[in-house]
This record gives sequence, structure tokens and C-alpha cells, in this order.
Amino acid sequence: MFIHNKKLQYTVRVSEPNPVLASLMLEQFGGPQGELAAAMRYFTQGLAEDDPGRKDMLLDIATEELSHLEIIGSIVCMLNKGVKAQLAEASMTEAELYRSITAGGDSHTQSILYGGAPALTNSSGVPWTAAYVDSIGDPTCDLRSNIAAESRAKIVYERLINVTDDPGIKEALGFLMTREIAHQKSFEKALYSIEDNFPTGKLPGVAQFADLYVNTSQGPGDTTGPWNTGEQWTKLDDVEGNLPLDGGDGLASVKLGAADKKATVALDKRLKSDLKGDPITGADLGAGPGAGKTTPVPVS
Amino acid sequence: MFIHNKKLQYTVRVSEPNPVLASLMLEQFGGPQGELAAAMRYFTQGLAEDDPGRKDMLLDIATEELSHLEIIGSIVCMLNKGVKAQLAEASMTEAELYRSITAGGDSHTQSILYGGAPALTNSSGVPWTAAYVDSIGDPTCDLRSNIAAESRAKIVYERLINVTDDPGIKEALGFLMTREIAHQKSFEKALYSIEDNFPTGKLPGVAQFADLYVNTSQGPGDTTGPWNTGEQWTKLDDVEGNLPLDGGDGLASVKLGAADKKATVALDKRLKSDLKGDPITGADLGAGPGAGKTTPVPVS
Amino acid sequence: MFIHNKKLQYTVRVSEPNPVLASLMLEQFGGPQGELAAAMRYFTQGLAEDDPGRKDMLLDIATEELSHLEIIGSIVCMLNKGVKAQLAEASMTEAELYRSITAGGDSHTQSILYGGAPALTNSSGVPWTAAYVDSIGDPTCDLRSNIAAESRAKIVYERLINVTDDPGIKEALGFLMTREIAHQKSFEKALYSIEDNFPTGKLPGVAQFADLYVNTSQGPGDTTGPWNTGEQWTKLDDVEGNLPLDGGDGLASVKLGAADKKATVALDKRLKSDLKGDPITGADLGAGPGAGKTTPVPVS
Amino acid sequence: MFIHNKKLQYTVRVSEPNPVLASLMLEQFGGPQGELAAAMRYFTQGLAEDDPGRKDMLLDIATEELSHLEIIGSIVCMLNKGVKAQLAEASMTEAELYRSITAGGDSHTQSILYGGAPALTNSSGVPWTAAYVDSIGDPTCDLRSNIAAESRAKIVYERLINVTDDPGIKEALGFLMTREIAHQKSFEKALYSIEDNFPTGKLPGVAQFADLYVNTSQGPGDTTGPWNTGEQWTKLDDVEGNLPLDGGDGLASVKLGAADKKATVALDKRLKSDLKGDPITGADLGAGPGAGKTTPVPVS
Amino acid sequence: MFIHNKKLQYTVRVSEPNPVLASLMLEQFGGPQGELAAAMRYFTQGLAEDDPGRKDMLLDIATEELSHLEIIGSIVCMLNKGVKAQLAEASMTEAELYRSITAGGDSHTQSILYGGAPALTNSSGVPWTAAYVDSIGDPTCDLRSNIAAESRAKIVYERLINVTDDPGIKEALGFLMTREIAHQKSFEKALYSIEDNFPTGKLPGVAQFADLYVNTSQGPGDTTGPWNTGEQWTKLDDVEGNLPLDGGDGLASVKLGAADKKATVALDKRLKSDLKGDPITGADLGAGPGAGKTTPVPVS
Amino acid sequence: MFIHNKKLQYTVRVSEPNPVLASLMLEQFGGPQGELAAAMRYFTQGLAEDDPGRKDMLLDIATEELSHLEIIGSIVCMLNKGVKAQLAEASMTEAELYRSITAGGDSHTQSILYGGAPALTNSSGVPWTAAYVDSIGDPTCDLRSNIAAESRAKIVYERLINVTDDPGIKEALGFLMTREIAHQKSFEKALYSIEDNFPTGKLPGVAQFADLYVNTSQGPGDTTGPWNTGEQWTKLDDVEGNLPLDGGDGLASVKLGAADKKATVALDKRLKSDLKGDPITGADLGAGPGAGKTTPVPVS
Repeated sequence: MFIHNKKLQYTVRVSEPNPVLASLMLEQFGGPQGELAAAMRYFTQGLAEDDPGRKDMLLDIATEELSHLEIIGSIVCMLNKGVKAQLAEASMTEAELYRSITAGGDSHTQSILYGGAPALTNSSGVPWTAAYVDSIGDPTCDLRSNIAAESRAKIVYERLINVTDDPGIKEALGFLMTREIAHQKSFEKALYSIEDNFPTGKLPGVAQFADLYVNTSQGPGDTTGPWNTGEQWTKLDDVEGNLPLDGGDGLASVKLGAADKKATVALDKRLKSDLKGDPITGADLGAGPGAGKTTPVPVS
Repeated sequence: MFIHNKKLQYTVRVSEPNPVLASLMLEQFGGPQGELAAAMRYFTQGLAEDDPGRKDMLLDIATEELSHLEIIGSIVCMLNKGVKAQLAEASMTEAELYRSITAGGDSHTQSILYGGAPALTNSSGVPWTAAYVDSIGDPTCDLRSNIAAESRAKIVYERLINVTDDPGIKEALGFLMTREIAHQKSFEKALYSIEDNFPTGKLPGVAQFADLYVNTSQGPGDTTGPWNTGEQWTKLDDVEGNLPLDGGDGLASVKLGAADKKATVALDKRLKSDLKGDPITGADLGAGPGAGKTTPVPVS
Repeated sequence: MFIHNKKLQYTVRVSEPNPVLASLMLEQFGGPQGELAAAMRYFTQGLAEDDPGRKDMLLDIATEELSHLEIIGSIVCMLNKGVKAQLAEASMTEAELYRSITAGGDSHTQSILYGGAPALTNSSGVPWTAAYVDSIGDPTCDLRSNIAAESRAKIVYERLINVTDDPGIKEALGFLMTREIAHQKSFEKALYSIEDNFPTGKLPGVAQFADLYVNTSQGPGDTTGPWNTGEQWTKLDDVEGNLPLDGGDGLASVKLGAADKKATVALDKRLKSDLKGDPITGADLGAGPGAGKTTPVPVS
Repeated sequence: MFIHNKKLQYTVRVSEPNPVLASLMLEQFGGPQGELAAAMRYFTQGLAEDDPGRKDMLLDIATEELSHLEIIGSIVCMLNKGVKAQLAEASMTEAELYRSITAGGDSHTQSILYGGAPALTNSSGVPWTAAYVDSIGDPTCDLRSNIAAESRAKIVYERLINVTDDPGIKEALGFLMTREIAHQKSFEKALYSIEDNFPTGKLPGVAQFADLYVNTSQGPGDTTGPWNTGEQWTKLDDVEGNLPLDGGDGLASVKLGAADKKATVALDKRLKSDLKGDPITGADLGAGPGAGKTTPVPVS
Repeated sequence: MFIHNKKLQYTVRVSEPNPVLASLMLEQFGGPQGELAAAMRYFTQGLAEDDPGRKDMLLDIATEELSHLEIIGSIVCMLNKGVKAQLAEASMTEAELYRSITAGGDSHTQSILYGGAPALTNSSGVPWTAAYVDSIGDPTCDLRSNIAAESRAKIVYERLINVTDDPGIKEALGFLMTREIAHQKSFEKALYSIEDNFPTGKLPGVAQFADLYVNTSQGPGDTTGPWNTGEQWTKLDDVEGNLPLDGGDGLASVKLGAADKKATVALDKRLKSDLKGDPITGADLGAGPGAGKTTPVPVS
Repeated sequence: MFIHNKKLQYTVRVSEPNPVLASLMLEQFGGPQGELAAAMRYFTQGLAEDDPGRKDMLLDIATEELSHLEIIGSIVCMLNKGVKAQLAEASMTEAELYRSITAGGDSHTQSILYGGAPALTNSSGVPWTAAYVDSIGDPTCDLRSNIAAESRAKIVYERLINVTDDPGIKEALGFLMTREIAHQKSFEKALYSIEDNFPTGKLPGVAQFADLYVNTSQGPGDTTGPWNTGEQWTKLDDVEGNLPLDGGDGLASVKLGAADKKATVALDKRLKSDLKGDPITGADLGAGPGAGKTTPVPVS
């Protein structure tokens, strides 16, 4: 069960209201790399986890991420505190209010639709979706996903720190950014505490394809590096000449029963293309005097 | 530029049509861990990448993933080939067609809406969304995301292999699963070819919070492990007693100008709660004779 | 800040695994009327609330809803515990596993994609979205929204109780359902503790339209009731005869400057319809020998 | 069946084009509190309603909301009429057109993608989704949802009125805002015309939990009010000391059959964490010379 | 303004309840090819249209599509009428109710979440989204989109007719299907009433690329037809040998100012790949004794 | 299988970075009319197509559209190259960076969240969704959809050309726009190569409704044109007087079994409206001294 204390994990001191900056901060509130995504990622993993150590760790970190959601949401509230009241009380002229909500970012929607309250959207106003949560119920995968997620959240905080000079906000964001580093370390420890975590799952790969590198992109800039060259790798450069890799005909086939076969033949016949004709088309009907239209775009 | 050869990278041989199995296979076509997500993840990273080696690798693997999208899509087509023609030609009775499209999975939508063609949805019919792609334009993060993504895709293929006994499908899925293992290896090599890749970004963390573990979930099952104990870690157990971590008051504040302050006071006053009263409510009005309703649920 | 105790608010005792029932239960985990929606609704309102009493209440209830999310998620985990392990270990034949994951509901996606872990989707596999949260930053509205949301959640629990005979699940769901009733009562008290809460906001309505009932749907079944008849109401029956309600011409107009006017005239001229002709169309080209097609559908 | 008259319910007179203001107005066209959401909410309820009085009322109001969708859409068209023609005819220089579509709001997307026609998006360009419609097929809930929805729509109109000084737009918005007040009154009458509407549904709550208030958020600002104090309420302050509320062990359990048990044991063993080790991790590999990185963020 | 008559445009007579069939019918209620999509497509186009003839036609057809939404929604209501009442009144045993809502399709969600009322989802429970509406504010495009949309809706109705043998439903669906044919004819007439409608817009194409066919997919099955062969077409077979088509270097470049150049150099240097090394990776750490894992998948 | 050459199909030369323009260009990268939508539309159709000629054409054009996705993505990368490096390296002051990312469009999200890499969103930051792809597995429909899609894409390119004066971008966009024209021509040829393509499908329409035009929108502006007048059409003007069109009662009905009937009666009775009363409502409780509120809005 969750309990709550109205003190924040870190004090938030904002110098002055700024609804545009508020709308940028939403990236870590309701954005894909934000704190709700982090909290829900670890919380749902924790519920499903049977290993007691990992379960405890996941619930620890999930709970802390919820507390970070509270911090970033509080920053948004403080930055919006002026515009929220001004718009609700109509204590400025219409022209002043119009200007104050269309000064940049997506603060117009945050004011008109959400009334300055922190909305679970990203900085473009896109509502948070659980499609951001990539957990699949296997800890050797989920821990890798968590490691990656923490590294991404760290960078988004760094970018937000780089665009504000409000010292109180910088300090709180610096705290939040640092905690992502610490969480990444914990998840790394947890991943490598599972013996034999690569490849994931129980099924081994097919030997002949597991160390093959297929050089599908060629032309200028073809490069070798440790990801395709060295003792481990077999590199396939003549891709088209080796199609398919299994030695078959490279086609897709299915064995149909008689009824399916009959229906398929009927369908194909009904919708057959006439390859020989040159039919008049709707575009021909519509081209009208515009036939002469196809002249070069004046590209200045 | 992309070029295409109508031979598949791996031959697809399906034993018999099965629209329910087709709808499960969609998970790797238009699902979050599927091949479109993989291809788009690496392709967009490749476009933005300035490092020539990584750019080449990302475009190599993106192109191969598109080719895998083609393989899994071809499996779906073969499995749907019967129902597609039967429904289009109405060559069965209505009752037979009704049964054949409501036999399980989400094959009903695949037949009625998409006509048996492979749709870019997951196995529940949810349309693919770019919200699945978590790239953020920083290679030390994106490579970690790719490593995690490959490990997830490997497992979803393993699950699909475990639920079908069609040998041709098993073989093609085994090939696709193996390639995810190979790709993970390449991305691992690429990550560790960047010197000093942890923590990501340029900004260091705040020293006092970077090795701190906050034990926010307590009660039965509290556990120690390498993620919270050992030389590196400081573990904080008395969480509430140490609020906030910065020594401030733990509250959120903002400095408001005079006009904002005035509007805020007016707004707060207008919407003030009366803490002392006990108002009659809409629920009171609606409770009617149902006041006696609140008796225990008969829980058998 | 949030703290967590690994004891649940209510003990969960499940009689036997059932992945189909698990997929139904997701409605209250990641569905629109579920516990995440409730928790996020109250949590974001609480952050933005300035009134100390309401802020405290919103955070109390938000925290309890998170704890309910944990309960319903735990039920899902228990119901999926068998299929999760069977699929991961492949300890049944393919045919048995195929049957066990396609037995109904959307359990196929829950198994293949999410591995039996509780996913933040509804019972059709649709990912949770913040579009479900309708808070707008005004307490007289948000409390009404909360009252409605609690009443809806109560009913969805009642429906789930009605479709399961597992006594432990029934008991836990009965607890959760009851708490929605209690929360509705609290929100009702809070709404009516704000004096003068109707109409919401500061701007009064336009007198002549505030008590008008427009009888736009006529024909069989036209009815009167307290919502359109009685002392308060003016009922308008001749809708078309009174268009528009303001006495103007009922059209939309804008004053354009010269440049806009010129561009508009050019655009209109370029795309003008010829009302007199009877052009040959693409459909005419395509109708071919199918002209005779338009005969009655045999409707049996 | 619906019929249409090309006269609007209220005349729309716009003073001058303004694509930024147009993009704000979209909030009530394709936004969550807008007219399409309202119309669809009442229309779908009306179809399912068996009570003749409520069915008639719902169809009356649904039809009027469609007519309001037409009014707000007409305002958008008038505000976009200049930019639409200018962009289509390219009758300004590129630099002028660029400036005119990037002046604020999300008017850039409205011009480039939708060509100045009214799109069913909110003011951030987010497409309308039926996830906004919270109807659940129970009138005691749905009427509460409608009451709340009308109160929210009223406020969003008030905010839009506050940010424009165009008298014709203000007047039309004032009409639309007032109609939301009238509709709320109708829905209130309809709710209270159902005897015994609280709690909703047939199942009563569990007596011991129906009047309990759980004080989960404590610390500074803990407050009492009519929502947790008074004759009706039992208030629980020692939350952790009373876990779980049912007197059980507070854990989640399920009875597994032998096969499930065996698979679960195998799975747990395969993925067991080693709690004693201190493994080298990927982060250790990547930290490189950056070990010295963890120094305080310069927070200015 | 819209007016409504409670008579349907076509009488709906359903033989018996069937919630699974109801969930299939939703495809034309809240699915991408359904009636809401059609109505909104034409309604929003009609609002923006300046040409009086087309405006009138669009509003005529939009209004009729709303009336069709009412018909298909009424079919859904009738098919759900039994399960709706049974679930609300709990007048069957839990086991019977469980079976009745998990018999196929996505009827489980329609019952549990929506209570049997018609929800604006497709047959997989995916909420309707305005992303289905492809109008772009240009009639020569929008009319083509409408023609295509009507042809698609016709086919989805045909598929639904093919899977039900209820004569009343077949008859109503046959009516709806036929109206799509009639609407397609009207839109065709309207498109070809605009002189010079191809290519759309004002800008002509670049002559050298407007009649070029690029044969990017080669290998088995390369075919010629009227779309790439004949008087009009130039066919390019040696695609790679002619890269790029403009005679340049085929690369992307931008001129950077000094500050941008300096930052770019610093960024590239910081994240440079070491192409020569063969770093130990996280996968190496995790491979453990599983090195022997890479053996062939037992494929049957 | 796909192969890739790192040369673009058309050289991209950008004059100078401009993140706002980059965010507009995204419309054709991850927007509904953009290149990913085009590529996926044709690729999935091509996989399902049995006709060899059409299959080849669809794969040709799909592959070219992927190559166009690469071109437009490269333009975005070049336009973002400055801001990407500046933000990553923090080589400007916070105030300068803040200004550079909030200058218009949705470039703030593109910088903060995506780090200047091309994201699969539209110009408002809305993630790409497969809901944009309207293929339904019938070539006579899908080709019409493709024709419409190409015409839309052409116009969006034209609009983008109209808002930029960068000659290199104009030239590349001119190439891409022209290719849409060429593709439309190919799809037109393919549609009319199918004999008897209208109406689509096998089922004919019901004769009496196939040539009927229903004049549902009346009032000012009622117009005749070739879409409702002429030899082919029967025009119905008295819509309400002819309800329903089938001569029945215009109502929806279903035959219920005894158990369903009994449950329905119980449900209706439980939720019956009292049409005679005039109940006190929640709004009455809340109106308080605000009764005097309903006075005209001051509309200036």
C-alpha cells in the first residue's frame, strides 16, 4: 500500500511564473521519458515479479518515481500560477490574456483546456499513453529496458537544465537528473545478478545466423567496426546474390484445401488486371486543359 | 535509397490457413516489439547519426528489419489466404463464415475491416503508433534502447514459436528470433565503442545523490542486494524522517508579481471550501430509500 | 512524497488461475474507469489545488487509488501466474499453449506481448491514455467530474463481481467497489462546501438562453419531463421557424482585407463547380458490364 | 433521422481573420470538452436508452450539440479564410506565408496539413478520440458524467471569451456557453427524477468500508473537513498500523495446480537473482575515465 | 442547424440478441470505415467549402450519414439488449454471465465497460479517432478521398452482410451498403464538375520526373503493365546506377555558421566510435555459461 | 528483401539551419499525408496482393516512398543540425537556447524530447499512427484510396514549397511533389485495368436506393448540380414526410426470449424516470446566492 507525506522529496523554489517554460517541463511529467512512464514501468514490473529482491527494488524505485512526478508537477504548477489566476479571474484585458497564452510552446492548450493545472501530456500537448511502457514480463528484458529508460530520462533532464536559468528549477532538475543515474546503476546491478542473461529466454538461436552480419546498406560510407568485423562475425556483402538465406525459393506459400483454393481462384479472376490495355483513367478525365501543366517548378 | 528484390530473405512455407494464428503473428508485424518498430527505430537514428560507422550499421540493420517485416507479413497473408477469399466471394454460408471469423484472437477485425490483408496492428487490433519508438537523438541512450528492444523482440518470437506447431512457421520465426540476437550483439559492440558512455550526456550528477539508495518500499519482503548494498551505496531507510533531502521546507513556492498575487487571492477566495459546515449533497438527494442499501456484499 | 508498504490494503486470495478472467479484470487496471485513471485524476488535481482542505483530500484519495491499482494488478498477476510460467518454460505442447491463450477475452495479447504481467490496457488491450482524465483546473468542475467518475467505477466493479464466482476475487472487488462509494461521498461534500458552485466560473449566462429548452428531436416519442417543462423552462418547439435564435441571418461571415479578398476570389474561381454539365466520371469508366449489377440484394 | 437547415442556430460575425485565434477555438470543436464530444456522448446514450423521456431529452440535446459544432466550426472557418486562400494561391511571398503560419498556437499544422479547414483536433492539434466519451450504459452514472461535462464545457467557453475582444465571436461564444448551463440543468433534473440513484447500481457496498475515510496523505497540511469528519465518517489515521483492512496477511496468493507449480518453480529458478554478489555491469564498462564525472551540477 | 426525427431512415428488425454479432457491427459505428467517420468527413468539408453547390451536397450527405450512424447504432443496441439487462440485473449465475460475455469478438469489453450501449469503437474495441478523417481542405483531393471512402464502406457492409443470416439485419445493411454506392456516384459527379482537376493544386510537376516509372522492386515477378509501360512512361530499370536522379552527389548537406560548426565538432568528438577496438560488452558479461546456447532451434 | 544504398534518390542541399522550418517539414515525415504513411500503405497492400502485376507495382512504389521518407528526413536533420549540437553541448547561454527552441512551430518538443533527430510525428508533434492507413484488402477500393492519398500528398508538398524560400529545399520538395503526380497516374492505370470496378465488391446495391438523392440539408443555399439532378437521379425533397424509406414503422426492435424480457423489464423499472415531479437537484443546491448570476454577458 502507498502512503503519502505532503512534504516533497526535494524543495521547489521557482523565481517567477513562466507558462511557456511550464509547457516545456511537461516533457518530464506526461512525456514518454517522464516520471509517470518511469513509475508505471517499475510498478507494473514489481507487481508481476516473483523474485523477492527484484520485487522490492522495483517497488522502491517506482515509489520514488511517483515522488518525482510530484516534484516536476509542482514546478509546472508554480510556473503556471500567474496565468491560471489571471485567466480564471479575467483580471487582464482580453488582448493581454491572449498574448500571455500564445507566447510559445504549447502553453495555449495548457491554459485554455487544462486551466494551468499540470496535465499528463508531453510538451506538445500529446496525452500520455501506456504505449510508452515497454515491459514484457521477462526480467532480463525489462531490466535492459529500464537501464535504457533511465539513460534517456537523464538526457531529457540535462536538456531542460540547459534551457532555463532559474536557479531553483535548475537545482531541482539537477536532483531529479542525478536520481536517474543512481537508478540506472541499481538496474545494471540487478541485470547482472541474473546468471546467464544473454541471449534472453530459453530458446537458443539458430547457429548459422547468430553471428552473421548482413551488409544491406552499401554505397558511399560503407564502414567496418567491431559490430560487423572481428573474430566473432561473418559478414555477408553480396546480399542479393545470396537470397534467400535458407536455400529455398524465397517465396511465401501455403497449402490450401479444395474450398479455399476454389474461392481464391474465383477472387483472383474477378479482380484480374488487364496488363495489355491502356485504359482511360479518372486522371485523364480530370487533366483537361491542364495537360500543359507539367512544366518545371520555378525553384528560384 | 532503398531497392527491393521480390525474393524474401527467408522462405515462408505455411502448412495450412489459420486466421486466429495470423492474428497472433501480427504482434511482430504492427505490435510494439515488432519489425516496423525496429525498422523505424534504427532508420530514424541512422538519418540523424553523424558518426559514419554507426550510421552505416543503423542503416544496415534498419534495412534488414524492413525485410523481416516482409517475412512476418507474408506469414500473416498465407495464414489468412483462405478466409480472405471465402469472405470476399461469399462461398460459404453466412453461418460458416461467422464461425470462421469468430474462432478466437482478434481475427474478426482482421477479416471484416482489413479483409485478411496484414494490418499494422498488434494482436489485439491496436494500430501501430510511433509512441513505441523511444529514440531521443543521443547514441549512448539510443544504443541502450536498441539493445533492450532486441532483447524484447527475441522473447516475443520465442513465445510465438512456443504456441505453433507448424514446422515452416517455426523455422521462419526461429530465423527471425536469431537475427534479433545478432543485432543485439552489434548494438552492444557499438555502445561500448563509445568511450565514457556512462552516465550519458555532459552534465555530471550531484555527488551526494548519485550513490544513494532510497528504501521507499518497506514492510514484509524488504531485501538487500547488489543494487542497494555494498561499497558503492548509501542506503536511506528512514525516508519520512529525512524529508526533504535538501534540508529545505519541502514545499513548492514561486515569487509572484503584484498583479498575479492579486488575481490569485481573488481566485482562492472565490473557490474557498467551508471546512466547518456539513452541506447537503447531491448524493444525499439521490440516496432516497436506498439508505438501507449499505449492507455487506454477499461474497458467497 | 510517497512511501510504500509491501502489504496490500486488502488481502487477495485467488482460487485458481484463469487468464481470460485476468484480461477482464484489466478493465479496472488500465481501462478508462480504472484505478490508474482515478489516481492520476486526483493526484494532478491535488498538485494544482490551492485550497488546503481540498488539496489534502485529493492527495488522500489519490494515494488510496494507487493502492487499489496495486490490488487489482495483484489479482491479474495471480490469475495469469500459470500461463505466464507455462509459456516462458514451454512446459506444455504447442497445441496446449495455443489453446490456453486463445480461450477468450484478449488474453492472447496479454500472454504473447506482456508475458502475463499486468499491462496498463483495458480489457480489449487498448493502452491507457491520459485522454481519459478530464480535469480542467477548476474545482467546481473537477469535483463534479470526480463524482461522476466514482459512480462509473462503482458500476464497472459491480459488473466484474457479477461475472466471477471466485470468492476471494469477489471479496476484494467488493471492497474496491465500496471504497468508490465512500470516495463519491467525500467529493460530494467537497463540492457543496464551495458556496455558489453553479453555474461554474465567473461569467453568468445570457438570460434569454439560460432557461430555454430546444425541442430539436421530434416525431414519435416526444415527451415532457422536469428537464423541459415546469416553471423554470421555456420550451421551443418550432425550431426551424425560429432560426437563428439571435434574429440575424443565420450565416457565418468575416470581414476580409483586400489581399485576402483577392486571394479568396482567385481560389473560388479556380475550383468552381460546373453546375450545369453532366460529366463522365471515374465510376462511369469503371462500371463496365456491371451496369446490370444494381439489382436487389437477395435478403433471404 | 437527422435533417439539416443551412441556417445556423446563431449568427456568426467575425471581425477579421486570425489563424492563431482559430487554432485556439478548435478546443471546442475537436477537443475533449468540445461539441463533438458532447454530441456523441448524448447521441450514443440516447440510442441505448429505454426510458422514453430520457431518450427524447438525450436526442434533443445531442442534436443541439451537433448544431453547436457547426457554429464553432464556422467561427474557425471565418478566422482561417484569409490564410487558407493565401496559401492555396501562393499570393504572398514565401517569407510572408511562413510568418503568417508560424505566429503562434498550432496554426502551422492547421494551415499546412488541413489547409485552413476546421480539423477535429484540439488546440494542440491532437486528433479527437472517443476515449473522451465516458458513457458506460447506466443512466445514473451517465447523467452524472453529463452534468460534469456540461460544467467543464462552460468553463472552457468562458476562457475563450476571456482571450478575444472580437465582439461577434464573444457573442456567439456567450450563446454557446449559456446553452451548456441550460443543458446542465436538464441533466440535473433527469438524474434526480430517478428515485434512489445513490449508490448507483444494484449491489450495496460493504458496510464497514462505506463510511471510512483513510488518511493516507499526512505531514504538513493535514486538514479536516466535511469530507472526512462529522457524524457520518470514521477516520483512519494510523494507516500502516492497520494493514490490511481485512485482517489477513495483506499478500496476494493463488492456488496453483501441479503443472503450473512445476513451471513456476522452473521459471523462478532460471531467473533467480544472486543477492550476495557484486557483479560488474555495463555501466561499469561504460564509466571509463568518466568516473570523475559525478561532481556537483553548477546550479549558478 | 440540425433537426431530428425519432423515426429511423430505415426500420431495424433484429431476430434475436447476439452480443458477439453486435461487436462485429461496431466496425461501421466507430470503426475507420464507419458512419461517424463518413459524417465527420463530409460535415467538416461542408463547413469549409465556399462553392455553394458542393457545400449543399456535402451537408446533405453528412446529414444522411449521421442518420446511418443512428441505424447501425440501433442494430447494436438491439443485439445487446439481452446481455445488457442480464448483466445489470445479475439475473443469471456468475458462470452463465461469464460465458455469455466471453463467447467471441470483443463483446467482453462492450459488456463490462460500456454496459451494452453502442460505443464509438471498432470491432476490436479501439476508440474512434479523428486520425481516420483525411480531409485536407482542397476539394479536388477531398472528393477523391470521399470516393475512396465510400468504396471502402461499401465493402465492409458487404462483408458484414456475408456473415449474418438474420434477415432484418441483412436488409438494413443492404440499404446502408446501397447508399454508399449512391454517395460515391455523387462525389464522382462533383469531382468531374471541377474543370482541370489533375494534377491537384496550382504548382505543376517537374517535367522530367512526372512520367518516370522507377522500377525499384526487381527479382522474380517483375512485370509490365499500363502503369509503367506505354507511350506515356519512361521506365528506369537501373536504379542504383542512376543515383541520384538530379546528378548531384546524393548526399544531404547544410551550411552551418561558425558557432553551429564548433558545437557540431565538439558533439561528434565526444560521441565518436572507436572503429578499431573490440570492446567487452554487456552481452559478453551476461552470456555466462549460456555460450553454448547457440544451437539450432528444434523446428518440429 | 530490401537493399539500401547510402546515396539519396535526390540530393539535399539546405542553406541554413532552421528548427521551426524543420518542425513544419515533419508533416511529410510522420504526418498523415507523409511518406511513412505512403510507404506502409503500398507495402502492406503489396504483400497481400495476388495479382502479379499489381503486386510488382505496389512494391515498386512502396520502395520509392521509403526512399522519399529518407529524403524528407534528411532535410529535417540538416535544418536541426545547429540546434541539436548547441543543446547537447550547452554551448550557448540558457537564455539563448531557450529562445532558439521556442521560436515557433513545435520545435520545442523536437529539441527537448527528440534531440533534433527526425521524429515520426506530424508538425504538431502527434506520433504517427497506423490509423492513417486505410487499406482494406480489396484492390478496387485500395487503388482508389491510393489515388486520393497521392493527390493529398501532392498538395501538402505544394504548401510546404509555398512557405520556404530555401532553393535547395524547394528543389527537393519539387521532386517529391512531382513523384506523387507520377504515382497517382500509375494507380489510376491500375484501377482502370480492372474490368468492372464499380460498384466495388460482388453484391449489387438495392435498385430502389442506388440512384436516389436525399435532400437532407435544406434552407438557404439549396442547390442542384450533376450530383443530384439529371437523368440518373431521383431526388427526394420531402425527407420527413417519407420516413422511413422502407415503409415500416421506423423503429428498432428485437425479439427477446423470456429470460431477457424479464431482466429488461426489471432494469427499466429500476431506472424509471418520474416524469411528473420537479425534483430538487444538485444544481439547485449549488446555485446559492448566484441565482442572480444569469444576466447578459457583457459582449463589449
